[in-house]
Amino acid sequence: MRDVAIIGIGHTKFGRASKTLIELFSEAALQAVDDAGVDLKRIEALFQGSALPGFEEGQVMPAVFSAADLNLGPIPATRCEGACASASVAIRDAVTWVGAGEYDIVLAGGVEKASTMDVNFATRTFAMACHAPTEGPVGLTFPGVFAMAARVYSRNYDIPLDNLREKMAYVSVKNHRHGALNPLAQFYKKYGDLTVEEVIKSRLVADPLTLLDCCPFSDGAAALVLCSAEEARKYTDEPIYLVGTGQSSGTPLAKMEDLTKPVSRISSARAAFKHANLSPKDIDIVEVHDCFTIAELIALECMGFFKWGEAADATVEDQTELGGKIPVNMSGGLIGKGHPIGATGASQVYWIVKQMRGEAPEGNQIDPVPEYGMTDTLGGDFGTLCHLILGRTKK
Amino acid sequence: MRDVAIIGIGHTKFGRASKTLIELFSEAALQAVDDAGVDLKRIEALFQGSALPGFEEGQVMPAVFSAADLNLGPIPATRCEGACASASVAIRDAVTWVGAGEYDIVLAGGVEKASTMDVNFATRTFAMACHAPTEGPVGLTFPGVFAMAARVYSRNYDIPLDNLREKMAYVSVKNHRHGALNPLAQFYKKYGDLTVEEVIKSRLVADPLTLLDCCPFSDGAAALVLCSAEEARKYTDEPIYLVGTGQSSGTPLAKMEDLTKPVSRISSARAAFKHANLSPKDIDIVEVHDCFTIAELIALECMGFFKWGEAADATVEDQTELGGKIPVNMSGGLIGKGHPIGATGASQVYWIVKQMRGEAPEGNQIDPVPEYGMTDTLGGDFGTLCHLILGRTKK
Repeated sequence: MRDVAIIGIGHTKFGRASKTLIELFSEAALQAVDDAGVDLKRIEALFQGSALPGFEEGQVMPAVFSAADLNLGPIPATRCEGACASASVAIRDAVTWVGAGEYDIVLAGGVEKASTMDVNFATRTFAMACHAPTEGPVGLTFPGVFAMAARVYSRNYDIPLDNLREKMAYVSVKNHRHGALNPLAQFYKKYGDLTVEEVIKSRLVADPLTLLDCCPFSDGAAALVLCSAEEARKYTDEPIYLVGTGQSSGTPLAKMEDLTKPVSRISSARAAFKHANLSPKDIDIVEVHDCFTIAELIALECMGFFKWGEAADATVEDQTELGGKIPVNMSGGLIGKGHPIGATGASQVYWIVKQMRGEAPEGNQIDPVPEYGMTDTLGGDFGTLCHLILGRTKK
Repeated sequence: MRDVAIIGIGHTKFGRASKTLIELFSEAALQAVDDAGVDLKRIEALFQGSALPGFEEGQVMPAVFSAADLNLGPIPATRCEGACASASVAIRDAVTWVGAGEYDIVLAGGVEKASTMDVNFATRTFAMACHAPTEGPVGLTFPGVFAMAARVYSRNYDIPLDNLREKMAYVSVKNHRHGALNPLAQFYKKYGDLTVEEVIKSRLVADPLTLLDCCPFSDGAAALVLCSAEEARKYTDEPIYLVGTGQSSGTPLAKMEDLTKPVSRISSARAAFKHANLSPKDIDIVEVHDCFTIAELIALECMGFFKWGEAADATVEDQTELGGKIPVNMSGGLIGKGHPIGATGASQVYWIVKQMRGEAPEGNQIDPVPEYGMTDTLGGDFGTLCHLILGRTKK
């Protein structure tokens, strides 16, 4: 396998968009192509994540019509669907196609137009990423799944629920603070001064999770231009290399032993580290899938940044903040930046690249710029996990 | 890229199934694994095509739960969605992952459970693979698209419409004859003695297409075990090699120059031939995407088996029958065998492998067994095209 580099990145404003799904993706893709300085004619394939385009816009196969909208000619355009991890799966797929030498330059990314559905319908629709035969009939939706995870976390580590509410709220406060500084974030300038008390006092969604423990529904797109490492320097002085990838699958919830230690998340992160020949201590920054505050804590423990049950206190102690042991979600994460499902994995990569280029929004940039960064993307209730490791140097 | 071989195949009965989508796929997958003689523990990844599982069973991310149902552990399980070409895209993806050396043994295939929707709802749902912004509002569904294609064919080649009705009917008669001999076909033993007149007189669906010009709605699954060529002989004396693949994308209909010469179908077929370093004259048998009779004629011309406008007469002259220039859809094709959307590409490969092993149902087997076979799978209204070339010898 050849080394693969990111040479261009694009990202729409997250939030409520008037553009269609196809238009949103084209906006991000054209930014990425422009950023790379490649001619559109050089793009040999498109790998696109999107989770629910049929339900949102009555459009399946959106990748094809994105390629057409971008006037890319009859190149292969493939949709990858892995619920919220769709874009990361698409990017991982693209890395292999370029790494294998089948293509030299490709577009990868994702898009979602969630705002065509109201929140109640959206919540029920998204829940189709649960195991339909066993979790559908009991009425489980994602806030419920992660509320259960929080309760298991509370019990496993002997943290009283009210105490855990407070610790989780620190995740929300941190991510909202960074989201408020990010002009492309859904909650830009909105919750910069949020307090732990405000998070706890916000509307209860699924006890112990409140509204501010949850990420919002969002529209948006993000895209990357990937290229073989040999060619990358023709286009940019700062190629960012994809040095490791991992993907794993979960089981129906009923077969999971411990909701706070999902095998899929552990296995995928380990695969990415092994692939990159790196370990958690080598990573300088991460974007993790904080669909709910508790999910960020679980992610950090599964990835090996903290021991079991210690991510909550580490967050309270600012170890996941700028200057801490491992800065987490300096983009705002899903909670502060927004979560356009199929786009999220590509957005995470976008913000790691921005950090590596020293181009993060003021107040979000880590210093010195990271050598290695990592993304964690979760689809469904731990159904699909995907981890990508980015480096300023080749593998 | 390493050479990649098919070492195991599985296929459910097509038609109306009482099993769920996940159960259907497991049935095909276990057959394939059993056929290959590999331990389930050796499977390193799953690539699954499915088109509309959210609409059919309220289940997105079915690949993940298939992996869980098969007890494959936390291996990556990826859903590829390219409408009716989903399984072919999944197989092509799997070939690259194995070819690149990332995995040695994987499962690939597809599944659909269309019968959860009634025919009217299914027709409208499937139409979401059209370009939603421009083709949705005018009420276009696939029978309409292909009826238009038939009319363009009639005009382009100066074949009066009633004359074309008759020529197209020969496709239906041929495919139903072979489907009637195929125990896994939806119309097994049903339309073996169909006449051209019966096709023309059957219920009008979209003029000039009648019911018997159309493939049915179906449930079903098909799966393959793919393996690096080096390892293949450990498992089987008759590995079938994937010697060429191609994939291309179309445009909204409004931007197509000629519905009977879709650039995507031409481009994808050429890519597969180039990849395999073969030409149409090297191919001994094909399974093409005959969602409607006219689609088979268009496929054969785009793939280069017949000159423009000559596939219709060639069909009437039995050139696409056993013993003809190029036997087409000896499985029954989509029309005789059924069309469980996301499974179709894998089913096509299954039947080419059966032919290459000399195991086709009596009356369908070509003699001598083919050296090279090819599949043509079409998603949407020429949105995604995928071609796979199989050989008894390596590339």
